Amino acid sequence: MSVLIKNGHIFTAVDNYLADILVDEGKVRTIGIDLTADAEKTIDATGKYVIPGGIDPHTHLDFPFGGTVSSDDFSTGTIAAAVGGTTSIVDFVVQQRGQALTEALEIWHQKAEGRAAIDYGFHMIVQDLPDHRLSEMDEMVRQGVTSFKMFMAYRGAVMVDDDTIFKAMVRASDNGALICLHAEHGHMIDVLVQQALAQGNTAPRFHASTRPPVTEAEATHRAIRMAEIAGAPVYFVHLSCTEALEQVQAARSRQNYVYAETCPHYLTLDDSMYDQEGFEGAKYVLTPPLRNKGHQDELWKGLRRNDLQVVSTDHCAFRFGDQKTLGLNDFSKIPNGGPGIENRLSLLYTHGVDSGLMDLNRMVELFSTNPAKLFGLFPRKGTIAVGSDADIVVFDPDAETVISAQTHHMNVDYNLYEGMRVKGVPETVIVNGRVLVEDGQPAGIPAGGRFLRRSTQ
Amino acid sequence: MSVLIKNGHIFTAVDNYLADILVDEGKVRTIGIDLTADAEKTIDATGKYVIPGGIDPHTHLDFPFGGTVSSDDFSTGTIAAAVGGTTSIVDFVVQQRGQALTEALEIWHQKAEGRAAIDYGFHMIVQDLPDHRLSEMDEMVRQGVTSFKMFMAYRGAVMVDDDTIFKAMVRASDNGALICLHAEHGHMIDVLVQQALAQGNTAPRFHASTRPPVTEAEATHRAIRMAEIAGAPVYFVHLSCTEALEQVQAARSRQNYVYAETCPHYLTLDDSMYDQEGFEGAKYVLTPPLRNKGHQDELWKGLRRNDLQVVSTDHCAFRFGDQKTLGLNDFSKIPNGGPGIENRLSLLYTHGVDSGLMDLNRMVELFSTNPAKLFGLFPRKGTIAVGSDADIVVFDPDAETVISAQTHHMNVDYNLYEGMRVKGVPETVIVNGRVLVEDGQPAGIPAGGRFLRRSTQ
Amino acid sequence: MSVLIKNGHIFTAVDNYLADILVDEGKVRTIGIDLTADAEKTIDATGKYVIPGGIDPHTHLDFPFGGTVSSDDFSTGTIAAAVGGTTSIVDFVVQQRGQALTEALEIWHQKAEGRAAIDYGFHMIVQDLPDHRLSEMDEMVRQGVTSFKMFMAYRGAVMVDDDTIFKAMVRASDNGALICLHAEHGHMIDVLVQQALAQGNTAPRFHASTRPPVTEAEATHRAIRMAEIAGAPVYFVHLSCTEALEQVQAARSRQNYVYAETCPHYLTLDDSMYDQEGFEGAKYVLTPPLRNKGHQDELWKGLRRNDLQVVSTDHCAFRFGDQKTLGLNDFSKIPNGGPGIENRLSLLYTHGVDSGLMDLNRMVELFSTNPAKLFGLFPRKGTIAVGSDADIVVFDPDAETVISAQTHHMNVDYNLYEGMRVKGVPETVIVNGRVLVEDGQPAGIPAGGRFLRRSTQ
Amino acid sequence: MSVLIKNGHIFTAVDNYLADILVDEGKVRTIGIDLTADAEKTIDATGKYVIPGGIDPHTHLDFPFGGTVSSDDFSTGTIAAAVGGTTSIVDFVVQQRGQALTEALEIWHQKAEGRAAIDYGFHMIVQDLPDHRLSEMDEMVRQGVTSFKMFMAYRGAVMVDDDTIFKAMVRASDNGALICLHAEHGHMIDVLVQQALAQGNTAPRFHASTRPPVTEAEATHRAIRMAEIAGAPVYFVHLSCTEALEQVQAARSRQNYVYAETCPHYLTLDDSMYDQEGFEGAKYVLTPPLRNKGHQDELWKGLRRNDLQVVSTDHCAFRFGDQKTLGLNDFSKIPNGGPGIENRLSLLYTHGVDSGLMDLNRMVELFSTNPAKLFGLFPRKGTIAVGSDADIVVFDPDAETVISAQTHHMNVDYNLYEGMRVKGVPETVIVNGRVLVEDGQPAGIPAGGRFLRRSTQ
Repeated sequence: MSVLIKNGHIFTAVDNYLADILVDEGKVRTIGIDLTADAEKTIDATGKYVIPGGIDPHTHLDFPFGGTVSSDDFSTGTIAAAVGGTTSIVDFVVQQRGQALTEALEIWHQKAEGRAAIDYGFHMIVQDLPDHRLSEMDEMVRQGVTSFKMFMAYRGAVMVDDDTIFKAMVRASDNGALICLHAEHGHMIDVLVQQALAQGNTAPRFHASTRPPVTEAEATHRAIRMAEIAGAPVYFVHLSCTEALEQVQAARSRQNYVYAETCPHYLTLDDSMYDQEGFEGAKYVLTPPLRNKGHQDELWKGLRRNDLQVVSTDHCAFRFGDQKTLGLNDFSKIPNGGPGIENRLSLLYTHGVDSGLMDLNRMVELFSTNPAKLFGLFPRKGTIAVGSDADIVVFDPDAETVISAQTHHMNVDYNLYEGMRVKGVPETVIVNGRVLVEDGQPAGIPAGGRFLRRSTQ
Repeated sequence: MSVLIKNGHIFTAVDNYLADILVDEGKVRTIGIDLTADAEKTIDATGKYVIPGGIDPHTHLDFPFGGTVSSDDFSTGTIAAAVGGTTSIVDFVVQQRGQALTEALEIWHQKAEGRAAIDYGFHMIVQDLPDHRLSEMDEMVRQGVTSFKMFMAYRGAVMVDDDTIFKAMVRASDNGALICLHAEHGHMIDVLVQQALAQGNTAPRFHASTRPPVTEAEATHRAIRMAEIAGAPVYFVHLSCTEALEQVQAARSRQNYVYAETCPHYLTLDDSMYDQEGFEGAKYVLTPPLRNKGHQDELWKGLRRNDLQVVSTDHCAFRFGDQKTLGLNDFSKIPNGGPGIENRLSLLYTHGVDSGLMDLNRMVELFSTNPAKLFGLFPRKGTIAVGSDADIVVFDPDAETVISAQTHHMNVDYNLYEGMRVKGVPETVIVNGRVLVEDGQPAGIPAGGRFLRRSTQ
Repeated sequence: MSVLIKNGHIFTAVDNYLADILVDEGKVRTIGIDLTADAEKTIDATGKYVIPGGIDPHTHLDFPFGGTVSSDDFSTGTIAAAVGGTTSIVDFVVQQRGQALTEALEIWHQKAEGRAAIDYGFHMIVQDLPDHRLSEMDEMVRQGVTSFKMFMAYRGAVMVDDDTIFKAMVRASDNGALICLHAEHGHMIDVLVQQALAQGNTAPRFHASTRPPVTEAEATHRAIRMAEIAGAPVYFVHLSCTEALEQVQAARSRQNYVYAETCPHYLTLDDSMYDQEGFEGAKYVLTPPLRNKGHQDELWKGLRRNDLQVVSTDHCAFRFGDQKTLGLNDFSKIPNGGPGIENRLSLLYTHGVDSGLMDLNRMVELFSTNPAKLFGLFPRKGTIAVGSDADIVVFDPDAETVISAQTHHMNVDYNLYEGMRVKGVPETVIVNGRVLVEDGQPAGIPAGGRFLRRSTQ
Repeated sequence: MSVLIKNGHIFTAVDNYLADILVDEGKVRTIGIDLTADAEKTIDATGKYVIPGGIDPHTHLDFPFGGTVSSDDFSTGTIAAAVGGTTSIVDFVVQQRGQALTEALEIWHQKAEGRAAIDYGFHMIVQDLPDHRLSEMDEMVRQGVTSFKMFMAYRGAVMVDDDTIFKAMVRASDNGALICLHAEHGHMIDVLVQQALAQGNTAPRFHASTRPPVTEAEATHRAIRMAEIAGAPVYFVHLSCTEALEQVQAARSRQNYVYAETCPHYLTLDDSMYDQEGFEGAKYVLTPPLRNKGHQDELWKGLRRNDLQVVSTDHCAFRFGDQKTLGLNDFSKIPNGGPGIENRLSLLYTHGVDSGLMDLNRMVELFSTNPAKLFGLFPRKGTIAVGSDADIVVFDPDAETVISAQTHHMNVDYNLYEGMRVKGVPETVIVNGRVLVEDGQPAGIPAGGRFLRRSTQ
């Protein structure tokens, strides 16, 4: 199908101009002034911003965790993503202990195939890595799974020792993969959690108090130092606090192969959410926890000065009604995670661009271009340029809406941002030239998302 | 005239794709695959890089200094610029003490008009600024001269006191202008120069030893602090050393409205040039002086991590044969400056991109996009996008050449990089849709450069 | 006269023990257990602390400033000092422009001789330093005036240009003198003051708002950099804020020849004093101004980790009733300065030691030992050791008192700490073996203070 | 026995004066000018320095390690210590896995009792710490063992996990003990060692290359962060490199309860020792390894600016002839450690004081006063003051000697400093009033060292 987008104000990570875009066979074919073409569909983008579709490199769809499974699967989750202006995701496969990486990957292919509305790639979460399995990392890279994630926390579950991390980094320095880390000092947290429970402190708020910022800063520094010796780049997921950011900044000053993302909830919410009545705080039990308000300014600064390169969602939804309740009497049993895949663009625009903290070019870079470049999808994804996939958002900067679980498309019974008024709405969303979202609602076309075989950087 | 550039590999500060470009009426009209058009001229760019024309925001053409006048005027200098892939410059007007800014500007308009081959803007060098003249700064901004430069060195000549700088900054925080600084501690340097001369140290090498890096670091910090109080952004010209870079980096970590450029000679040459026989070192008497080799790595790092945003030339040519000789017996009388306007692109490509220190996107950003954005020329200049001025370089990345005064187009009898082999040559250079350079040589068309009325950021 | 101090708990900068001290001919002769001697006077120090007499290296007695003269002269000021446990001062001579340093020194000798109750040395404030006067600096050193102070603020009055400072530093690097600096960026302050007055902001509070911390940080950094090039140590007087402290800390990390003092008022008072009714704030118009409360913690930390080595008073008293009033309608005309020479020890003990921020050894070091070492008086002064001058304070750590102008001995009609309850009182104060203070009151003996011919470090 | 030391130049950590010292019943009784007393022994110290006896808080006598036992026991080791001016040590008890701390301590009491020539205290090395054993830490404190050491390296041997360290710190924050750490990242080192051996790199030099500075910096930072959360002070043993020092410095800037020692071999030797012929490098296989020469300057700076507070020896001697040879074909099997207990004072004086890097007061502080204060021995030890133990060194600053295994008193067949000429020799060494060393040689008196029941800070 060919589509002609007329008169839009096009923004990429660097550019800013008025033009028409002709899409054909799923790709951008021509950009120009007063384009005339017999397109099957014409979209009038006058007065709208036309930006590259978003790439969310941190989602957990159909994800088994803490004795349950995250509530959004590849169908519901990717439709919600598209409504929010996100046209590709990179989701997490998880290797079980003793399992071959190829076997784990196969399971996730089955979860996604035929269900995903948008394109998807995979990271591989590694849990154990005996020497004979190191070559499986190379095989993953060949199959387009070019990033590996490890957890430095969740002792007794997915946490791995430093030797696993270090060996993976050494291998990655050879095969070009990117090592991603959940950086929290699991040992300290484990002791603090046991202390809290022993003192009868079981409410959701103790999830936050037992994971202080220093535990994140420590693990961030440790991973940076291991990466330095291994000669491998490293990417920190969901960086949440000033102390960890300082470590990233210091490392980048030294050598520049350290990357990090933060998430909208760290930028816009704070730990006062845990002080709500009753069990309400469980909605915000995600990891790292929300921090006190003072961290937000520093995270925004980190985004501006490029110490943080990506804003992802860490979307990992659990229903409040019957999933979060697993930890009703023990905060350490609350499934960690929260929804967000649908709200990233409006939150970034409202709190970042509209409030003057960054310009639209930088927003596009954080939302789409940088994830594409870091995770081996550029220039196919992450920009609006001739020859790229036609993943395009027509964004109405003036429309306003109120976020609510009543109206969102995620399969979960609450929203982290319930009642928040945001400015800027993705009006039309095009994925590979197909119009998935019109007037801000799913257009009801069949699932056509494809697996993204990613390259190394 | 319409021009069709076929099959080039287009690089902007972010993008990287293969396409055709149709130029019409001096602007980019269409970018697409397999464009067909009745263009008056077609350029085959197969196998070539197509990049935005360069912007050199630091040149001194027809510039009076040290009792003489720089040897390149707006004719010779801009032709050399174009041959080197630079399609716009921002040159320096100098206010004499007691002179109205408008009067000074008028003189420079006369120097440039009808002579410049490429487009040009002006910065205004301010020497004195009594309170009644502050409003003249606003008038300059209205006339498109949106940046003001002051000297913290050259005591007894162009150096100004801190109150002048601070008052200008306070005004700039209102009218949106950018304050540019030559940052060296003039008082210390003056004492050190007098000491050196008193000890009979008159050779060119003492130009360097009397301007140690700390003198630059100090002034850089001082200006940053004044800008912080004034609430004004500040831009450091020709940053040359690690110590000054550290100040810029620290400031950017705090607040982010500090910018700096460095120059190819600081990136590729070092102070061993002053140890040559006889008066040869005088060729390298420019300010700040060349530093020891250890600084180069840090400057390249600064470019990579965006603490430095621009590479300019500080082109200020004086003939070795009859101008540099003014200081034959006293290094402090050697006219400070060196040529370079023609060599920026090849040097950046060879030492930056080809050697693996940065990618082409970053090179374009430093060479063209950032100067355009910082100095109020974007998106008219600084990118290849529909609607922008057709300032385009078709760059042959494989061609090699040897830099030499024998073959360069600058009006000066030596070259800083004499004998250096470089890779990558601007083959065709288009300015406002007019082909100024073909096969790497001036095409001989009439001077058509226009004054650039710049906006504020 | 011989004195035997029995059973005291002796504290020096490092030691802490119980013993008797025998003083003879003005010096400590013997320290031991159960000393028996036919002393002319025996003091029972059971339950008391016995510490070295204080050295206050920053006082302005009989000091001409802002069209008036400070209200304490060498008689009243030194008696107040002794009551407060201070047994030596280093006061400031001021050279007038065009005056020989020897001539200025002679004037101050006449002010002090025969009037001072305690020993005194002099720093020399330099206002102009043509090359032919540099040798006078050497002469000062020979006469025991081994430190020179310059002002980077008070434009139009005592402020000097950087070349004066730099030349003095170069000379000091030869003759071993210590350069002391009042570090504030006079140019910025001057512009800010003019702006404030132009806007009708004439009240005392604008003294503070026109001298923001950054102006102090900038000047501190600048002087450090000049000292670095000159190869001279440098000492910052009255450091008042975090930003300046960071500069000192950074410099000490690099090279360690940077020293700084702070004063009790910066440690215990804050800028809320300027918000008082009417003209009351004028009492606190001293320079640098009191800062907001957040700085106090950092200054205490600086004292603990030795980035700050001395606590002095900057005692410069002006009567509220008829001197401060010079600036009733224009804060910039209020004589800058406040009293404090009498209160240093009790404030340091109460807020430092008794509140747990430092131990007594460190207090002694800041109060006595370090000033003695830095200003060429050690081991004659600054410790309790065999052979040292018998400058000793018998301090009652349990006594409490309330500071008040009603009871203080300084010749000024207000006290910065009016109404503050302090713990720890100097009960007996001995200078050169003579008991000047008994039961916390002047013993009424004749002035016997001697000029201290100081050595270089 | 009473001893009168006449006319010595006494130096403590702060003082510097000429006086006589009367020692009686093992303690300093009187210090004064022209003391007359019927002492049983009179020592003429004219022209000599009289300083407090040294405290070496890091020795391994009779220490089981790597399948052998260190060659100096409490008899030979302490005699060598005394000859070197050290009058107290704090040695390491090692808990075996599963062993009660009291049981381990008892074994060490038996090793030392009746054999030690000088006084000795103990640290406890903890290997496992199940919750039920935490109270044993309190018992140790009651018995005067107030510091606990843990290893972050030596995986498969004494290395403990972070949870053990963190739990010990939490306990120490209650009972006032000091946690000491061997800070190296054991996991990384283990991987690097396996890699090296797998590549056939078995020579001593690979001991150094498999333990790069970053492994020490990482562990240092990690422990600092754990201590921060636990609210406990922490002490780093044998800090060897710039990178680790930077971590200590940063921590001290933040909060000041981080301490560290370095050792003479890091200050004076470098990794070129590993490049010697054959197996010679094994003599220098100690941990952390010797670093490249560039680190030495930074360590000296760290000592001067008090980021390092102590110089200890980490004396752990293994004979070259029959112990080091355990690793003849595999560097990882060479017993780690080297001798040094006898050489500390002369090395510090020669390289520190005589070369101008520090003054004698600072040397005394590093050598004696600070270890006494940090490890709960002050003011009994660590100074020369009335009432303190008479542990005194009469030091001849002008005597020169050449260090050699031929003449040293340590029970080991080589010396790290073989052939090095040093200036300054401990001529007479007094411990608890008994003259152990005369004319620089053991006086042959019976072992009289006592166990030091240390207090908490």
